[in-house]
Amino acid sequence: MCPSRGVLEHVTSRWGVLVLVGLQEGTLRFSELRRRVAGVSEKMLSQTLQALEDDGFVLREVYAVVPPRVDYTLTSLGSEVAAQVEALTDWIEENIDRVAQARRARPERARAPR
Amino acid sequence: MCPSRGVLEHVTSRWGVLVLVGLQEGTLRFSELRRRVAGVSEKMLSQTLQALEDDGFVLREVYAVVPPRVDYTLTSLGSEVAAQVEALTDWIEENIDRVAQARRARPERARAPR
Repeated sequence: MCPSRGVLEHVTSRWGVLVLVGLQEGTLRFSELRRRVAGVSEKMLSQTLQALEDDGFVLREVYAVVPPRVDYTLTSLGSEVAAQVEALTDWIEENIDRVAQARRARPERARAPR
Repeated sequence: MCPSRGVLEHVTSRWGVLVLVGLQEGTLRFSELRRRVAGVSEKMLSQTLQALEDDGFVLREVYAVVPPRVDYTLTSLGSEVAAQVEALTDWIEENIDRVAQARRARPERARAPR
């Protein structure tokens, strides 16, 4: 697989998008991030973070305290890609009414099974 | 599911991205689009196009000729979202070396199993 395809999949995955946008406001712990990314399982959040770390978008810092504390922060590369992803999600939020309108305006013909 | 989440999934899916970017250069027939989006099955391409049509991003035009001809074109709404998606994919293409560099620079510690 082409490497840029892999990166695209990491940053546009259901959870990847939400992690990037969630971390844009600053460092978060795993548990905080999990609350921010509503609906994600621990396992999926770990996998998502691992992929984003491997790509150099997220920095993971472990503190040897009890209970263990793990912080996640966007790198500068991660901030850049997060801004691109957020531009897209903002566009969608701003235009969701036009999408709804397009759906209502579709002629019945086009909705027929094919 | 929140409607904007659904739209985000359609335009950032593996095939959704490639269909939007492929149609940016103009109208394509199903078979042309399938060649452009290398690796997609007929079924997946149909499903992808159906979702993008329902969102108002793609216009499907059927001509009653033999063999049947079906053209796909971006709507103005679709052109806008395609531009957003392309900004993201362009960023990734331009920065893929930085991603590769980040991977090489990661300390071994960080790669340990957790």
